[in-house]
Amino acid sequence: AVADGRAERNCTVSPPYLPSTAVDTTLRLKALREAMHPLEISAYIIPGTDAHLSEYIAPRDARMAFMTGFTGSAGTAVVTQTKAVLWTDSRYWVQAERQMDCNWELEKDVSISSVADWLISEVPMGGEIGFDPFLFSLSKADYSVNLAPGNRTLRSIPNNLVDKVWTDRPAILPDSLTRLPDQVIQRTWQMKVEHIRNQMGENPYQPTALLLSALDETAWLFNLRGNDIPYNPFFYSYTLLTMDQIWLFVHMHRVTEDIKVYLNASCNGSLCVQLKNYEDVRTSLGNYVAKPGVKVWVGTEYTNYALYEKITPQDKLLTSSYSPVLTTKAVKDETEQRILRDAHVRDAVAVIQLLMWLEKAVPEGKETELSAARYVNECRSKQDYSKGPSFETISASGPNAALAHYSPTEETNRKLTVEEMYLVDSGGQYLDGTTDITRTVHWGTPTPMQREAFTRVLMGNIEISRTIFPSGTRGVNMEMLGRRALWEVGLNYGHGTGHGVGNYFGVHEWPVGFQSNNIPFRAGMFTSIEPGYYKEGDFGIRIEDVVVIVPAHTKYGNNYVTFDTVSLVPYDRKLIDTSLLSNEQLQWLNNYYSTIRKLMGPELDRQGLQAEKEWMLKNTEPFLKAASSASICSLSLTVAAVAAALLHNTV
Amino acid sequence: AVADGRAERNCTVSPPYLPSTAVDTTLRLKALREAMHPLEISAYIIPGTDAHLSEYIAPRDARMAFMTGFTGSAGTAVVTQTKAVLWTDSRYWVQAERQMDCNWELEKDVSISSVADWLISEVPMGGEIGFDPFLFSLSKADYSVNLAPGNRTLRSIPNNLVDKVWTDRPAILPDSLTRLPDQVIQRTWQMKVEHIRNQMGENPYQPTALLLSALDETAWLFNLRGNDIPYNPFFYSYTLLTMDQIWLFVHMHRVTEDIKVYLNASCNGSLCVQLKNYEDVRTSLGNYVAKPGVKVWVGTEYTNYALYEKITPQDKLLTSSYSPVLTTKAVKDETEQRILRDAHVRDAVAVIQLLMWLEKAVPEGKETELSAARYVNECRSKQDYSKGPSFETISASGPNAALAHYSPTEETNRKLTVEEMYLVDSGGQYLDGTTDITRTVHWGTPTPMQREAFTRVLMGNIEISRTIFPSGTRGVNMEMLGRRALWEVGLNYGHGTGHGVGNYFGVHEWPVGFQSNNIPFRAGMFTSIEPGYYKEGDFGIRIEDVVVIVPAHTKYGNNYVTFDTVSLVPYDRKLIDTSLLSNEQLQWLNNYYSTIRKLMGPELDRQGLQAEKEWMLKNTEPFLKAASSASICSLSLTVAAVAAALLHNTV
Repeated sequence: AVADGRAERNCTVSPPYLPSTAVDTTLRLKALREAMHPLEISAYIIPGTDAHLSEYIAPRDARMAFMTGFTGSAGTAVVTQTKAVLWTDSRYWVQAERQMDCNWELEKDVSISSVADWLISEVPMGGEIGFDPFLFSLSKADYSVNLAPGNRTLRSIPNNLVDKVWTDRPAILPDSLTRLPDQVIQRTWQMKVEHIRNQMGENPYQPTALLLSALDETAWLFNLRGNDIPYNPFFYSYTLLTMDQIWLFVHMHRVTEDIKVYLNASCNGSLCVQLKNYEDVRTSLGNYVAKPGVKVWVGTEYTNYALYEKITPQDKLLTSSYSPVLTTKAVKDETEQRILRDAHVRDAVAVIQLLMWLEKAVPEGKETELSAARYVNECRSKQDYSKGPSFETISASGPNAALAHYSPTEETNRKLTVEEMYLVDSGGQYLDGTTDITRTVHWGTPTPMQREAFTRVLMGNIEISRTIFPSGTRGVNMEMLGRRALWEVGLNYGHGTGHGVGNYFGVHEWPVGFQSNNIPFRAGMFTSIEPGYYKEGDFGIRIEDVVVIVPAHTKYGNNYVTFDTVSLVPYDRKLIDTSLLSNEQLQWLNNYYSTIRKLMGPELDRQGLQAEKEWMLKNTEPFLKAASSASICSLSLTVAAVAAALLHNTV
Repeated sequence: AVADGRAERNCTVSPPYLPSTAVDTTLRLKALREAMHPLEISAYIIPGTDAHLSEYIAPRDARMAFMTGFTGSAGTAVVTQTKAVLWTDSRYWVQAERQMDCNWELEKDVSISSVADWLISEVPMGGEIGFDPFLFSLSKADYSVNLAPGNRTLRSIPNNLVDKVWTDRPAILPDSLTRLPDQVIQRTWQMKVEHIRNQMGENPYQPTALLLSALDETAWLFNLRGNDIPYNPFFYSYTLLTMDQIWLFVHMHRVTEDIKVYLNASCNGSLCVQLKNYEDVRTSLGNYVAKPGVKVWVGTEYTNYALYEKITPQDKLLTSSYSPVLTTKAVKDETEQRILRDAHVRDAVAVIQLLMWLEKAVPEGKETELSAARYVNECRSKQDYSKGPSFETISASGPNAALAHYSPTEETNRKLTVEEMYLVDSGGQYLDGTTDITRTVHWGTPTPMQREAFTRVLMGNIEISRTIFPSGTRGVNMEMLGRRALWEVGLNYGHGTGHGVGNYFGVHEWPVGFQSNNIPFRAGMFTSIEPGYYKEGDFGIRIEDVVVIVPAHTKYGNNYVTFDTVSLVPYDRKLIDTSLLSNEQLQWLNNYYSTIRKLMGPELDRQGLQAEKEWMLKNTEPFLKAASSASICSLSLTVAAVAAALLHNTV
């Protein structure tokens, strides 16, 4: 407990207490403020993203982390001449307190208006706020909406100020791009291009071009992959697609002769890909927009402001939240669905191996968060088509698990014991699919509260999973089902309830999911379902499964869908209080377990893993309803008992 | 059945078939098109609202109804030189088909983009679309966002074109305003003014004035009522509130000397109300905005474009979706909560009288939709503080009930029989509160499908009502609970799930409710919960209750709330299939019925209504769980039965 207490900074004592995990940002802040001075800006905004609005970014784009020390995947930093502030959501509050020194304040309300309000309070009337237009989406132009009434204005500064002071910034990787093998592809890139052009033609506003900025848009369109971003097989790129031309903006030195042939790079017809330098996208876009009668379609969520501001006048711009590539990609084709399910079968083998091994190893007292993370990564690497983890494994024991997206380091590494709850959130990249699964276990005796919280998290997972709903329903309007059983006793969790996943792609594949800006659910979409509960300083629970949306047959209606769970690892039985489950929930759980047996049995046989198979069978035994739960039932029993007693006496 | 078939227009036959309910719009359309011609506009938009963006409007503002014949409370009409189109939502599709002639097309997608897409398809490039800026909110400026890319522009035409051709348009009423009696008021208008000024002072953007445009904003602020709009005690008005002045824009001839004294109209201090002519609001606002250093706060949802366009430049404008008056009004004070509950007790007496009377009268075969509506209105009028119905009573039998917001007319009036399901949605205005309740009954033998649908609608009502959730949760993120039991068998409904209600105010009191643009739920808010199911041409089901949000005590958390039902009328027992209800749902239902007994028993005694009391008691008998439902339970029973049998034999 002492160790944890000391793991967070304390800026209220003097001298301030800083944990060994905190980064000294004094000098880099001084340098940044000197760079701000000649520009006469009162504040400078440093988002956590890159020029493609990526959620996970390359080390060379980790500007927020460099300036603040905070390495979480979500946040915004703002620096003035006197203050430095980081905004991040509840998943990361504890992590931020461990990684930041006392130069930085932590703001917990991550709404744009909160950032805007802070800027208004700190920036004098008429003051200017600098930002790098490459690191802001159009929708972030919301800032100006919030700032305008306060007479503060944003100034676009295309040369990033952090890069100026970041002397040892990592370089661009030399590795070449790779193409997906035919067996994982149903639609060739030419078919995809034609399909997208059809959607452009059908658009009532008649766009002449489509600009693709998100890294997975271009990678998906051409069935290509790269390695610019850890855990994400993406590569720096933009695409400008017109009805008769295709311009691919990429770092030339990374395109092999094979890839050039594959892309028909030597011609300039409607199905030839013309390769352009990545750095030329802004200029080339400007030249295209200068032509008469053109209209460029962009998705506001993933197009950066630097490109957006080149598309003028207004009538040459057509916006939707997401490009037709993202909405098309969201619905997996038959091949993608089949191989993504297959990947989850092999992935479950690795997770079962981890859980079985921990059951034996932990009581011997030699295992830690780090050794467990290494073990599951190793198990995955042995599976067919493995391409490594899909994100840094979250292996968290006891209080560390209360940090929703904590990953162990040498400094924070905890020993695994029968005294603590353990949470492992991990996933794999495979040539045929991306996986993401979370299990929470206890090797000793859980407290009643831990058992109740776990069961209610599970109830949330089940309530979403078993729901039948009209195709086109939004996840955000259903996600409360994941919280309701927790709400009933005054518990909740501070993060989202799920996100799309890809085929050898991003582990968070938007815009599918349960967030308010996600698109409506349709059959063929994959999403995670991951309710949780976190007791700060004590323990953390999360149960995450990946599901696919499938048609549901209903008594009276058509066009209804439901979820089919494709993650195939049983939950920790000793943490489930079946007396809290409804009959429907218990039935769902038993059906799920029989599915695990049906699909994992043969696979474990195929891989000759008999011990694992026995472990799986033991842990998927059907549950029986604890009579205690259903008050009405005990009633009926009483009645029957009385009847019996009467019978007895009458004779 | 024949009668119903013939009740809708048929424009595909020649000559077109028009029901007697259809309005001939040929001449007025001709006149409007002639008025459009000199302005060189390609299209003219006719919304269904007034200058205050009211949901219910005065006859003199029913421009859409005058032009189209369609009298529903929601819709938008557009007229070009060759076409005339009405957009309205599914509640009104059948009604529109009954009231419109074949000059009009019906569009069923009511999204702004659908209207915009239609305009783009019908209006030539560069064409202008005329609109009356008084009849559009700022948020409707979304139109231009949708139209801009298509090179079509909106032109603000302050002189309404429909009024020009509407020769017999009703005049403004002469009646004077009235003030609320002290016993229904906790906060005087002076206290409210101070409270709102405090919120203006706390706003980081430092507004110098607040403009109130919605009719209930001004009426609430001054504790005044009027009668400009049927069923709604509103009066035409605007308020401009600064930190030291109060300008009330109203029709002068309606303000009595008493009201002038009440408002301190003779002075001009910070708590004196300066009366201005209603028609001068645009000019006065312009003069105020012309002053240096002013900033006017407006709510975008209820401020019309004609006033908005006077507030320039941008830095003199401060917007939020709703004014602080609407968000403050949404949470009822203790007095408002108490008297609104009281009003519902008296209101339930009237509804119980109706249902009891219909049970007897219908089998005798002399009653109709109209006579039932008259009866319930009459019962309400006998209750204390009655101020008449809060909206036109929806009294609908059989297929008419499938028209979610149908009200009977001489043409459509159906006889009530034991063969048909009957839906009655009605409410009252009382000096102390506004009510709104819907019950659906069957006097004969319902079909199994009717019984299942009714029970699932009830399950939806119960699932929302019994949910415990964190204060600040949005209704739109919970309303699927009202649909889930229907979705399970492929049923659904096409309208919202609930709306706020007022204290002697609007029966739809926004922004409280379950719509996406409603504000988060907090303790002290009142809303209706009204799931339904409608089988076109056959029957309609809706179960509507008003609930208040109250604090909930949870095992682990704070700041959780739940709903407490204040409508107190039992549901039709023969339509409830208890075998479909969960134990929790059954328990909720029995608790609700015991509450009805506790509150209605004494009230019915007080009013000396013994027959009604017996009817109430008979219809609130507790339900017993039908064993058949819970598979687990029947199991336990079987076991017990076997045990009993054994006992018997052994002796």
